[in-house]
Amino acid sequence: MGQPVPRLDGWAKVTGRAAYAYDIHLPGMLYARVLRSPLPHARLRRIDTSRAEALPGVYAVLSAANAPAIRWYQQSYLFDRTLRFVGDEVAAVAAESIDLAEDALRLIDVEYEPLPFVVDLEAATRPGAPHVWEGGNVAAEPRVYQRGDPAGGLERADHVVDVIYTTQAALHNCLEPHGCTATWDDDELTLWDSTQSVFGVRRGVADALGLPEHRVRVISEYMGGGFGSKQVAWKHKVIAALLARRARRPVQLMLDREAENLAVGHRNPTRQHVRLGATRDGTLTAIVAHIEQGVGAYLLGGEGSDVSGPYRELYRCPNVRTEQVPIYLNTGPAAAFRAPGWVEGAFPLESAMDELAHALGIDPLELRRRNYTPLDQPKGLPYTVDGLRHCYERAAAVFGWDTYQKPPPQGSKRRGVGMAAHNWVGGSGWPPAYAWVKLNTDGTADVITGTQDIGTGTRTGLAQVAAEELGLPLERVALRLGDTQRGPYAPVSAGSATQATLGPAVRQAALDAKRQLLTVAAAILEVDADQLEVCDGGVYVREAPERRLPVEEIMRRIAPHMIQGTGARGPNPTDKSIQPFGAQFVEVEVDLETGAVTVLRLVAAHDCGRIINPAIVDSQVIGGITQGLGYALMEERVIDAGSGVVLNANLEEYKVPTALDVPTIVHAQVDLPDLAANPTGAKGIGEPPLVPTAPAIANAVFDAVGVRLRSLPLSPQHLLAALAARQESGR
Amino acid sequence: MGQPVPRLDGWAKVTGRAAYAYDIHLPGMLYARVLRSPLPHARLRRIDTSRAEALPGVYAVLSAANAPAIRWYQQSYLFDRTLRFVGDEVAAVAAESIDLAEDALRLIDVEYEPLPFVVDLEAATRPGAPHVWEGGNVAAEPRVYQRGDPAGGLERADHVVDVIYTTQAALHNCLEPHGCTATWDDDELTLWDSTQSVFGVRRGVADALGLPEHRVRVISEYMGGGFGSKQVAWKHKVIAALLARRARRPVQLMLDREAENLAVGHRNPTRQHVRLGATRDGTLTAIVAHIEQGVGAYLLGGEGSDVSGPYRELYRCPNVRTEQVPIYLNTGPAAAFRAPGWVEGAFPLESAMDELAHALGIDPLELRRRNYTPLDQPKGLPYTVDGLRHCYERAAAVFGWDTYQKPPPQGSKRRGVGMAAHNWVGGSGWPPAYAWVKLNTDGTADVITGTQDIGTGTRTGLAQVAAEELGLPLERVALRLGDTQRGPYAPVSAGSATQATLGPAVRQAALDAKRQLLTVAAAILEVDADQLEVCDGGVYVREAPERRLPVEEIMRRIAPHMIQGTGARGPNPTDKSIQPFGAQFVEVEVDLETGAVTVLRLVAAHDCGRIINPAIVDSQVIGGITQGLGYALMEERVIDAGSGVVLNANLEEYKVPTALDVPTIVHAQVDLPDLAANPTGAKGIGEPPLVPTAPAIANAVFDAVGVRLRSLPLSPQHLLAALAARQESGR
Repeated sequence: MGQPVPRLDGWAKVTGRAAYAYDIHLPGMLYARVLRSPLPHARLRRIDTSRAEALPGVYAVLSAANAPAIRWYQQSYLFDRTLRFVGDEVAAVAAESIDLAEDALRLIDVEYEPLPFVVDLEAATRPGAPHVWEGGNVAAEPRVYQRGDPAGGLERADHVVDVIYTTQAALHNCLEPHGCTATWDDDELTLWDSTQSVFGVRRGVADALGLPEHRVRVISEYMGGGFGSKQVAWKHKVIAALLARRARRPVQLMLDREAENLAVGHRNPTRQHVRLGATRDGTLTAIVAHIEQGVGAYLLGGEGSDVSGPYRELYRCPNVRTEQVPIYLNTGPAAAFRAPGWVEGAFPLESAMDELAHALGIDPLELRRRNYTPLDQPKGLPYTVDGLRHCYERAAAVFGWDTYQKPPPQGSKRRGVGMAAHNWVGGSGWPPAYAWVKLNTDGTADVITGTQDIGTGTRTGLAQVAAEELGLPLERVALRLGDTQRGPYAPVSAGSATQATLGPAVRQAALDAKRQLLTVAAAILEVDADQLEVCDGGVYVREAPERRLPVEEIMRRIAPHMIQGTGARGPNPTDKSIQPFGAQFVEVEVDLETGAVTVLRLVAAHDCGRIINPAIVDSQVIGGITQGLGYALMEERVIDAGSGVVLNANLEEYKVPTALDVPTIVHAQVDLPDLAANPTGAKGIGEPPLVPTAPAIANAVFDAVGVRLRSLPLSPQHLLAALAARQESGR
Repeated sequence: MGQPVPRLDGWAKVTGRAAYAYDIHLPGMLYARVLRSPLPHARLRRIDTSRAEALPGVYAVLSAANAPAIRWYQQSYLFDRTLRFVGDEVAAVAAESIDLAEDALRLIDVEYEPLPFVVDLEAATRPGAPHVWEGGNVAAEPRVYQRGDPAGGLERADHVVDVIYTTQAALHNCLEPHGCTATWDDDELTLWDSTQSVFGVRRGVADALGLPEHRVRVISEYMGGGFGSKQVAWKHKVIAALLARRARRPVQLMLDREAENLAVGHRNPTRQHVRLGATRDGTLTAIVAHIEQGVGAYLLGGEGSDVSGPYRELYRCPNVRTEQVPIYLNTGPAAAFRAPGWVEGAFPLESAMDELAHALGIDPLELRRRNYTPLDQPKGLPYTVDGLRHCYERAAAVFGWDTYQKPPPQGSKRRGVGMAAHNWVGGSGWPPAYAWVKLNTDGTADVITGTQDIGTGTRTGLAQVAAEELGLPLERVALRLGDTQRGPYAPVSAGSATQATLGPAVRQAALDAKRQLLTVAAAILEVDADQLEVCDGGVYVREAPERRLPVEEIMRRIAPHMIQGTGARGPNPTDKSIQPFGAQFVEVEVDLETGAVTVLRLVAAHDCGRIINPAIVDSQVIGGITQGLGYALMEERVIDAGSGVVLNANLEEYKVPTALDVPTIVHAQVDLPDLAANPTGAKGIGEPPLVPTAPAIANAVFDAVGVRLRSLPLSPQHLLAALAARQESGR
């Protein structure tokens, strides 16, 4: 552990031999496509699939006319007669080729009755707005949190920042779209799926189809990314299974990029009214936030994005109130998206803190130091480590925050710096999770768990844990995962939790195997097992290291007996709170003429506990910041208000950062083994790096040109408009 | 347990959905064929594969000219330049179709230098016989066993039977031929194989290719029979792997029926000189056997067939000597074949016992009763149960042995009855073997082991053990097996050991899971766990059965926690010997004109301990007896002595019994739970039913027509020749 070893599956991936969901090809396999609603809100008057069914090469067609009445979402069905967003599922076809399936979709006659719709958060909350569901557009009881006396706190403040921020709907756009291949063996279904949760999909699909869980096998060997939306047992998995059963052939249903961007999740757009009160010295007296979040047409987890989180937890403040209202819209459903809620909440909070700092004439970092808390205030528990403080100081030092000298303007170009911080509710890991270790007769080891590697390096990070505990070279350890039928349970890969959840289970299983190995070695070496150590593939006597047996030799002696270790993830401490933290500092250049914001450099420090593999942690930090950069500067789902149509459900018009957009990112490692959290000392790093990037950039833009952008993305249009507005107002 | 439930995979099999080795189809897969020696002994002078390589659609060609120098058998190589039997591997081709691969084989130019050869056991032992290997045709040191004073025992006998018996080479002829599909994922090899030993093949193939074990995954989901020859890591598996690596494509290499019958094993032909000495009252004073067994050109296990076993163990006798000499022949290698050795040894021993009975005027069953032993004499240990005695009495009673009245001759037809018995060294099961049990959140269970179901019903029998221990209905339990990568170690499915080896491991794993389940239930029901029982899918309080919780509800309460149980097969008792036993009684009709022997009815009693599934045990009994019938009456590999060519390496000329050849078989169940053997009480039944069939029939033929056939098979030619010889000698 601690070594930046290359990913164990790197070679398979770069040579194209790693089999992703798209790469599953079964004999006789059919290809499925889904007909999607062209209207944002409509009733299905009539559907006639007979011409599609008659097309040679078409094996199965499903629609509201013939599909089983499987309940879905709120009061709706798998194929519902009311459609609530552009992209909602109307029918599905399985045919011998993708082209044929698409031809067949065009042969389906549908008559829609258009209904009034609403796709905009502000419009949806106006009186008389069209209703997405009977009962109105407020999707659930507002979530309210309060401590202390927020109103009093605001009153007692010397200064109050009172502003409205908005954030956009961003699209997950995993490199690999959602999709699966379904095949039946009698009453057993096997699903090769691109998913963050093989066990979650097993449960969801089994429930939908009325199957016992052990009759559904979900396999995910390689995944091209999952940012939260792939933790859901989406409709298309059940549709693929139903088509396969009907056609009596394997069916592959991969979403194309448009379907991907319409139907399977996005980060919820928000409108946030923020009030921060502080005394003259910067001490916060109140934090109040009223948050509206657009959850789309259906509730399936996006509404759980806890936008209130940072307000509640990031700063020491006795008086806090957050109120979060989920609002229905006639769009696809929102879904969890990498640090869900925290990303949306951090931009307003950390921008408003910057506003406060400037208003009070206090350095933004100093303001944060003054409001530092070592306590998880809602829980009333101390954090396991003072991670945030370390991140502040480390990142500031590497960035040169205290000594930064702004260079003079160059033509229309202005430089500026900014910073922002984060905590994150995830990353602690949690039970249950299980692992098995097999020591083979040649001293190699297979580690088996039911988790999945969603592209984050789970195979490698967990193998490192097992190799260290077993004292074996890494190449003697293989990590087997992603198969519900053959592996023990592990939870969804989400919440930045996989390493911290599975690592302890793997470590315990390896320890269990090691104990058995040492017992055997002790008998051979005629010493007590507690006098033995294992390292570099050999067991030796601690006091006499020359008395050494290779693990291979020990295993050969007991062959064909093998050693089997089992491990389970233990509970987290109840007297402490485990969170990862981080801070990012950024320097930007803003062009007053074009409105372009160029990030010149970014220094990030993130406390993820013990760094088990620095290369993999670097990957997560750079990847997260790159996604944060897209969120800050360019990504935004655009919907035409008149038609409800998403105008950029593709990668041509929905811009994500390319390699050329990525600045120098310095990962200033903070390696703080958090042994109070779990025996591996590691916490999560998958989500957090994305959280502070947008506010850090926005704060740097303010520092450069003096305008405060309170709406994402910080696009040239927004910036130029703000600059023009400032000029008009004569400021 | 104890219920004749249908096989869990029966539906998959009868509908053709079960995927056997032949049914694996991978994208881009190539098909391989092997060029085999046309000569029984030859040196490769020259081989030129260039024309084959140039054929479009051919992706790889392997031969002695280019294959890696992988050691094989005795002092030879995977592709050797000396060929020692008709069918020995000369070259292999992978091409886009089987036809193309066969075309390519014909384009390989080979020049052979013929060498002298020997294919007959008697010829091979003559002075001056051609040598299969330098150093002579005795393949290894004779195996000698002796107790007491055999020479003295013969001297003291009132009567000595002194006869020579011969048995033929029989071919395994599994319904599904040998074969596999190999594919590489970087440095990891996956092999879908028709094998009795996924872990054995993993080890063998890894060793041959110089790979660590965890880089080889062997999968065997469904198997079309394995009678011992499929426990070997044969050349063709390594050839398929090498071709796949060279072609960079998956390669399927299935043997055709001819290759199957030439190259991958047969039951060794034997010549056995038997002497039995007895006192006037039938008490055995000596058993002496000199045995020659033809092992073919290579040693790979067939030589281990312990022909001496029955002589050593079946009867109480203080003076025993057996000597067993393995002899090389220029034929394919012999391999273990269902009760290896015992089948070959039982025919002479049990025929000679019948000769002794007739000579002394003692009823054959009574003679056996008088020489009954409750002791494993070589080991000096008592048997766990008096199984053989029960089998004698039960089968005799059901058959009506004591009251049998021979009907008068009908024209040329004569009736007769005979019997024979067996013990068997296998069937006890042994460690190591491991199993894991997962209880899912809906109360279903997956049982995972590394064993394989070779067609014997292992899936079902083991699932029954788990279901009983877990108190779940059988349909809530699924048995997962046949995958070295994802399952814990289990040994080869051989020695009639699978149920008795895996059953206790599965039971222990289920018990481990059950204990955890009861602990949870105890907390919910607020009682001690030891007051609880589980049955029919529910946990209830023993003293208050109305206080009952469905397992599903218990699991839902702790979800997503699941329960994981592990189990290992414990050791066998050291103070007792565990063996299965059996006896068969048969009535035949012999036609003096045609020489045809018709078996009219057969009653079999076999002690296999507790009968876990009567339907599956019936299957094994009927299947074994059917194979014994073929061995007795029709099966014989015929080799042309002049050319060394096998004349009937096919199913047209090598006759196996068809449904019409099978008589009424009555399985007189002897259900004697052998709890001293293991906690499931079950012993093996896979091999034994074949053992006594041939001698029982031969003894019945003697009873019918008074001629003693001392050579198998009991074909019409043999019988007519023997009848003619008797007429000539005027007896």
